[in-house]
Amino acid sequence: MKIVIAPDSFKESLPAELVAKAIHEGFIESFPDAEYHLLPIGDGGEGTMQSLASANQAVIETVSVTGPLSEPVHAKIAFSSDGKKAYIEMAEASGLHLVPFERRNPLNATTFGVGELIVHAMDSGATELVIGVGGSATNDGGIGMAAALGYRFYDHEGALVRGIGQDLFHIESMTGEHRDPRLDKVKITIAADVENPLTGSNGATYVYGPQKGLKKEMLEEVDSALGRFYEKACSNFNKEIMSIPGSGAGGGIAAGLLLFTNAEIKKGIELVLEELDVKNICKDADLVIVGEGRMDGQTLNGKAPLGVAACSPASSRVIAICGSIGDGSEKLYKHGIHAVFPTIPALLPVERIMNDAYNNIKRTARNIAALL
Amino acid sequence: MKIVIAPDSFKESLPAELVAKAIHEGFIESFPDAEYHLLPIGDGGEGTMQSLASANQAVIETVSVTGPLSEPVHAKIAFSSDGKKAYIEMAEASGLHLVPFERRNPLNATTFGVGELIVHAMDSGATELVIGVGGSATNDGGIGMAAALGYRFYDHEGALVRGIGQDLFHIESMTGEHRDPRLDKVKITIAADVENPLTGSNGATYVYGPQKGLKKEMLEEVDSALGRFYEKACSNFNKEIMSIPGSGAGGGIAAGLLLFTNAEIKKGIELVLEELDVKNICKDADLVIVGEGRMDGQTLNGKAPLGVAACSPASSRVIAICGSIGDGSEKLYKHGIHAVFPTIPALLPVERIMNDAYNNIKRTARNIAALL
Repeated sequence: MKIVIAPDSFKESLPAELVAKAIHEGFIESFPDAEYHLLPIGDGGEGTMQSLASANQAVIETVSVTGPLSEPVHAKIAFSSDGKKAYIEMAEASGLHLVPFERRNPLNATTFGVGELIVHAMDSGATELVIGVGGSATNDGGIGMAAALGYRFYDHEGALVRGIGQDLFHIESMTGEHRDPRLDKVKITIAADVENPLTGSNGATYVYGPQKGLKKEMLEEVDSALGRFYEKACSNFNKEIMSIPGSGAGGGIAAGLLLFTNAEIKKGIELVLEELDVKNICKDADLVIVGEGRMDGQTLNGKAPLGVAACSPASSRVIAICGSIGDGSEKLYKHGIHAVFPTIPALLPVERIMNDAYNNIKRTARNIAALL
Repeated sequence: MKIVIAPDSFKESLPAELVAKAIHEGFIESFPDAEYHLLPIGDGGEGTMQSLASANQAVIETVSVTGPLSEPVHAKIAFSSDGKKAYIEMAEASGLHLVPFERRNPLNATTFGVGELIVHAMDSGATELVIGVGGSATNDGGIGMAAALGYRFYDHEGALVRGIGQDLFHIESMTGEHRDPRLDKVKITIAADVENPLTGSNGATYVYGPQKGLKKEMLEEVDSALGRFYEKACSNFNKEIMSIPGSGAGGGIAAGLLLFTNAEIKKGIELVLEELDVKNICKDADLVIVGEGRMDGQTLNGKAPLGVAACSPASSRVIAICGSIGDGSEKLYKHGIHAVFPTIPALLPVERIMNDAYNNIKRTARNIAALL
């Protein structure tokens, strides 16, 4: 009997590692001799690189790079134990959390530091890079990052620009002549948990600009400037990337990585499942346990439980354990999750439910195991 | 596959019949061809006779008898379809609900009407009587009932007394000479859901007297009078019944039935299980589903789920579905209930949980069935 325990965290009450541990404890009474695989799963959002790195026993380094407002910052970067693979979280170098509230303005912000992290990774011998692009302070379309990789951007007077948000208004020409040649040999994967296009009403500027400090009256202008720059750049490098879903992620750094490097873009959750080798681990599982804090019709929209279920063969049983269930949970039955069990024991104060999450999960797992 | 669905009611939200129906609906998707037995179970308390009667397709009659305050009342009595078995609920003739609050006083109350119901049952040809003894207004030790059956009780002046509570103080002698001879040939079973002895601090008078309107300052006197009467009566009829658990049920009518007829006493739940033939129905069940509104450590104290579990063979799996679970529910695992599943989906307003009980039960049953 092979049992894979692959839950997401129960948000606000228990991290995925402890959810997995509680389920395991609930099962061992009934199945002391089963082969267990504990595989806590992130949902592909912010912090995913960190968890992938730790799942892969990666080594973490701290590097000084250019911050979002061009000040130096310390950014973490992780390498697989053989040094071949690097995990980069964009927010480490260009994160919104690095900018005090009153100074937030993506027109002044740059992704230059992300480019430096990529260079550092290549300097270190990595040939495969995974870059998470959530939580940024920037809306520079990745030109800062491209500048750090050797691309050069010039204004109408032929002067080199640095690569901050507002440079998008001024760039007249560009060249890849001095581009780091090692970029041809590294595989870059972008982990994006949003699917926004680069421009337009659903694009980077309109959707994420305001929360990064961009004034409402600037949205149209900035969106246009980003679009004009990319029309020029795509034509210059003879590549079409603007319509790729997710190209608007990270203030358009995804578009930049797609255009200026040979990156491919993946949904965060898909990458997590790949990196954790979930499909391979589940291929001969008798039982796969998934879970998250709340399961309802929304769970269908690409969340971890559905992703794990999709990795599980038809021969395995997939059971979900969740904090609570809501409207539409019955839709899950048609998407590879065979049964769903909430863990709430009774109508108790929410704090008590949260505090007892571990025991509630363990008890539910024990009762499920007793049926199998 | 044989599936027995034998839940108690979910108090305040769903009667046992509907709980059983919801569970059945939840199961048929996974097991459309199973052999189902829907067996809603009462807990042996008040109303048990009614539910046994209806489970057995009994015919209900209404009879005019003597009420608790000696006024005429209409009492229901049920007969099995062959007429051999009668179901009597003490409260129909002598119930507390028949006495207005301001007139409640067990010293004035009599169980004469219960005796009349017994006579009516024998007149009708019944040879087996099941008598539920909850909810009475009386504390007469069953002397009213005995008087209706032909026993005669005399005071110190040799005058016949009627058989109300306060007569217990005055009875000096008694005779069974005129006792209804048919009593020797009928089998009487008392269904008691309490185990109180006849007298003492845990006896009929002290525990139930006050809620029937007996003044606190009278408790000791009345308890002594009841004890003295039974010492005399037991010695007179050469029978010992005072130490039998449950003899204090129904204001001591249980003691009266034990002494003045050849009754035996059973726990309500045991009788229910017997009458519904639960053991026989479960003997080859693959699955037995039990349930009640709330399950916790208290469920061990003789409630329906444990009773049904005890009727189930080791070869069958017993699963509990309940509204909520509380402290100590894990003790059930050692008492024949293999797994327990609460049906609360989330922290919602209690009215919504109550109103959705049917769907919550059905959904839980569906998910359990999907695992089996």
